[in-house]
Amino acid sequence: MFQFLGEEMPQSTKTAIMIIGGAEDKVHGREILRSFFNRSGSTDARIAIIPSASREPAVIGERYREIFTEMGAKGIEILDIRDRDQCEDPLLQSYVENCTGVFMTGGDQLRLCGLLADTPFMNMVRQRAQRGDITLAGTSAGAAVMGHFMIAGGGSGESPNRSLVDITTGLGIIPELLVDQHFHNRNRMARLMSAIAAHSDRLGVGIDEDTCALFEGDGLLQVIGKGSVTIIDPAALLHTNHAAVAATDPLSISNLRIHLLVHGDQFDLHKRMPIVPALP
Amino acid sequence: MFQFLGEEMPQSTKTAIMIIGGAEDKVHGREILRSFFNRSGSTDARIAIIPSASREPAVIGERYREIFTEMGAKGIEILDIRDRDQCEDPLLQSYVENCTGVFMTGGDQLRLCGLLADTPFMNMVRQRAQRGDITLAGTSAGAAVMGHFMIAGGGSGESPNRSLVDITTGLGIIPELLVDQHFHNRNRMARLMSAIAAHSDRLGVGIDEDTCALFEGDGLLQVIGKGSVTIIDPAALLHTNHAAVAATDPLSISNLRIHLLVHGDQFDLHKRMPIVPALP
Repeated sequence: MFQFLGEEMPQSTKTAIMIIGGAEDKVHGREILRSFFNRSGSTDARIAIIPSASREPAVIGERYREIFTEMGAKGIEILDIRDRDQCEDPLLQSYVENCTGVFMTGGDQLRLCGLLADTPFMNMVRQRAQRGDITLAGTSAGAAVMGHFMIAGGGSGESPNRSLVDITTGLGIIPELLVDQHFHNRNRMARLMSAIAAHSDRLGVGIDEDTCALFEGDGLLQVIGKGSVTIIDPAALLHTNHAAVAATDPLSISNLRIHLLVHGDQFDLHKRMPIVPALP
Repeated sequence: MFQFLGEEMPQSTKTAIMIIGGAEDKVHGREILRSFFNRSGSTDARIAIIPSASREPAVIGERYREIFTEMGAKGIEILDIRDRDQCEDPLLQSYVENCTGVFMTGGDQLRLCGLLADTPFMNMVRQRAQRGDITLAGTSAGAAVMGHFMIAGGGSGESPNRSLVDITTGLGIIPELLVDQHFHNRNRMARLMSAIAAHSDRLGVGIDEDTCALFEGDGLLQVIGKGSVTIIDPAALLHTNHAAVAATDPLSISNLRIHLLVHGDQFDLHKRMPIVPALP
């Protein structure tokens, strides 16, 4: 739907929180990364790259630096945080106070949270993103951390069950979301449904590779990219046996609502329904 | 839910249509096969085994013959149909006229339909099953053929899209269903959602291995076995781009309703809702 919102429309420059399902195009159209760049201020952008999820932070940081340099960003810093103490560093904090965009790379979401959760540095990033002062993007592990709860790992190829997903605490950028990434690419529907059975006060958001769920702070989710964003909405949940069964027993869950959204689609987070075009 | 309907209850002996997700237990409790045996008349059962989906029909037919012999069936015939002409054989037809249970094995659902669809033999099996005169079970390929439309093949690991699933015509035992098997075991959620986008007048039923969706003809679906039965209900579908996009484009689908049902759960096919126990 709304295919006309694609190429022809001028790119928005409004700040946003961008949750990217991993493996975003870094070579050809770079649509998602270009959108991040535009929404961070284009040639006025001062971008902070946080590569801390990765075990090769220098390599991956440099990769994104090159991309945003080629696009013409005014300033780029790689905030190579490898120790929680660094999050107290006034220089780091001052850079984040003055940047216009923050990009969190992929890697291991547990590592990223272990380094950043509840630090003054991360609190500032979160608050500035929530206020709409900056554009904050995270891809893969950087996407997984966006909710209050976070999927740390899990499996596939089984009936949904409690042991299929490991849930811990994320960075709480958009607390009400429960995010999964590389979603259909890695067959993660069963694990996200299992997670939602445990946390039915959240909204499940499964994001495919090279696909982005973008939040402008106006209660709208917009989709850009190649794949789909899967919404698992338990608002009308009738019943689940989640609390009553063993960890490996299959889960009974009644009345989940599912939406598959693609490039150009919009989803109203208050009504929890897609904005569907009027019939022709 | 309804766990108390499990072991303690006496096994029903009512005829049923049993759709089994493949890999049903053949060695230990044999719960599903025993249920088929009981519903086919127990020690009075005259069972027809149709191994025609398989490329080794003699081997697989013999396997099931041994199982039902051990259980104590009164009569067992392996109807090893390898040619459509055999379906005209009066001997075969007379056996099916007088049997109490028919079991279709796994293999290749296209092969099974190619041999049996629209033959007098299959028409008789279908009509007797629909009237409740016999119990009809199909596992794996034998399950896939149950609807009017049939999933012949497909893939996983991609955003749902039209090319992810091959749909053809099944045997129409319960025409309104669109069945998939080995469901969560082989990560088939995306392909069944893709199929339902194309056929939103059907009810998607994804059945896990060693799990059975059982229909008694009273408008109730009951679940037995180890895994889950996933219902994908498009009755409240708001929008899909299915008709408008290229075969490999990701599908936009608004407002599917999903239920995961487990052993003992019941689903009202008229109301399209699970029968949920009253709050304690």
